[in-house]
Amino acid sequence: MVKVKVAINGYGTIGKRVADAIRLQPDMELIGVAKTSPNYEAFTAMRKGYKLYTTKENIQKFQNSGINVAGSIEDMIKDSDIIIDATPGGVGANYKKIYQEYGKKAIFQGGEKSDVADVSFSALCNYNDAINKNYIRVVSCNTTGILRVLCTINNFDKIEKVRGTIVRRAADPKEVKKGPINSIVADPARIPSHHAKDVLTVLKGIDIITSALVAPTTLMHLHTLFITTRNKVSKEDLLNILSNTPRILLLNTEKADAESTAEIMEIARDLGRYRNDVPETVIFEDSIYTNGNEIFLMYGVHQESIVVPENIDAIRASLNIMSRDESIRLTNETLKIGKGYLI
Amino acid sequence: MVKVKVAINGYGTIGKRVADAIRLQPDMELIGVAKTSPNYEAFTAMRKGYKLYTTKENIQKFQNSGINVAGSIEDMIKDSDIIIDATPGGVGANYKKIYQEYGKKAIFQGGEKSDVADVSFSALCNYNDAINKNYIRVVSCNTTGILRVLCTINNFDKIEKVRGTIVRRAADPKEVKKGPINSIVADPARIPSHHAKDVLTVLKGIDIITSALVAPTTLMHLHTLFITTRNKVSKEDLLNILSNTPRILLLNTEKADAESTAEIMEIARDLGRYRNDVPETVIFEDSIYTNGNEIFLMYGVHQESIVVPENIDAIRASLNIMSRDESIRLTNETLKIGKGYLI
Repeated sequence: MVKVKVAINGYGTIGKRVADAIRLQPDMELIGVAKTSPNYEAFTAMRKGYKLYTTKENIQKFQNSGINVAGSIEDMIKDSDIIIDATPGGVGANYKKIYQEYGKKAIFQGGEKSDVADVSFSALCNYNDAINKNYIRVVSCNTTGILRVLCTINNFDKIEKVRGTIVRRAADPKEVKKGPINSIVADPARIPSHHAKDVLTVLKGIDIITSALVAPTTLMHLHTLFITTRNKVSKEDLLNILSNTPRILLLNTEKADAESTAEIMEIARDLGRYRNDVPETVIFEDSIYTNGNEIFLMYGVHQESIVVPENIDAIRASLNIMSRDESIRLTNETLKIGKGYLI
Repeated sequence: MVKVKVAINGYGTIGKRVADAIRLQPDMELIGVAKTSPNYEAFTAMRKGYKLYTTKENIQKFQNSGINVAGSIEDMIKDSDIIIDATPGGVGANYKKIYQEYGKKAIFQGGEKSDVADVSFSALCNYNDAINKNYIRVVSCNTTGILRVLCTINNFDKIEKVRGTIVRRAADPKEVKKGPINSIVADPARIPSHHAKDVLTVLKGIDIITSALVAPTTLMHLHTLFITTRNKVSKEDLLNILSNTPRILLLNTEKADAESTAEIMEIARDLGRYRNDVPETVIFEDSIYTNGNEIFLMYGVHQESIVVPENIDAIRASLNIMSRDESIRLTNETLKIGKGYLI
């Protein structure tokens, strides 16, 4: 099998996880990773044996720090078939010109505006719309979390209305200087939050309004959704569908005696998961509640890892390597992503 | 004017604030306050000149700590016309027997079950239902916050449906050993949360479902509500009603450049408010959004102080001292509780 040559531009929270995931794919080869600062993440990349690239003006700085540089970012792009752009939000749009110049495909992240790409992407929702597209944008962690749940329910019974609140984590665990440390922030103090708009880039035509808050925690986001469907839906049917959907896990909060994001992370640690990542959307089973044609539920979104499998699938869609179901199955198998019950 | 003799049983977060508020009322006299542990709050009560009472078995312990005790809790009850029961949740139900034995009226807090009292109380909603009642329960801080907004809107246009999320503060500022410190907790991981049920004890017959989460912060709760009214409501009308309702303040988040609970508390400190209390419900003006007959909004609830004016009004309703409007006006005037814009 000829392997797809993948380069990672930006080696932060998302880039480093996608790099690790690429190495596990039988149909992909990791060309290297690009970074602009020679920090601890560059050293761990070197220890893992990843080829490191940086901007021309930074090469000397990296070498002075004792990091071997394989070449410039342009060199890396030239050697690859497709680039995962995991640069900070808004920076990817500038790099797009370079990808285009070299005639390379690219996968952008949710921090970019949706018009950077030909299609916004969530594997469970619209894999087929992304086939052969040159530029694909994987939606943000919160939007990926919402879309997995909404598309699953929408396939079962048409969604008429969604009203939801997103309680965001304040910062990623590594961001030592970010806050808030003792406050609840309306982010923004305006309704709707951008998440509703972003959901509509993938799941078109539904009536969705979201509000977003930030809480002083680093571990996960937590969403609470109020969904109205066309017909009456039973809790039993919902449990059946959700527990059979890949990338969605249910947590039996009563049995596990766990009903917080901290406990989900602790379970991931106890299971020996790499970096304690939980790329699945974790639904609190006991929060699923139906009332006529209304559905209510709460779930956690692990902001660092939820989009990783989506990036892998986006590569296969862009290059039309295999079908949606084959790609999702292979990604899940290689990354050990579950379905059914976490506990 | 003959003053109503009021005793405070339980001198914690709520009790100490209600005691201070009683002292400011021209028609009330503070008999004393009762506590069971001789901690720093007992010392500050003594410095303020409040008569301290405790259980018979604790009198010696208080005196050994250097605190003068005026008598037993029974002595305090005997000397009063009405008791504010601010004991920990569930304890008030036990004390009710003693209040009944001495033929005294009492005001309970939201931590008690609703059947402890003849009526659950929120001044803007059902003052008149509480007139001459012997036992009144002031609903909890979150329920008081919701009810002020819902009753105000319900008087303008009938509410058909409410779906809301309550992000609770994890602990009060003084609770040094409480958590969570880095987690979002579903509290409970079950829908609906008890707040919906508690709202229905006052605002009867509406369709309300709430979900509740806990965030690691001590300052305030924050609610996000999705309300459906019978008719179409404009943002202009809403702003007009809300800005003219006592105990509701609007925060112009853009003008103030403030959109968090921390900033609301800082504004209260800068205004020199006693204990930086904010007994008003603080609505983020920019979060008010209408969509046909749907209304969306976010507001902060200061859990330590929001029920203080409600307790004062409940005393006047129980003893039928004055009308709803007179009581609310007098309470607001003495406690300097505002309406209109915080900023």
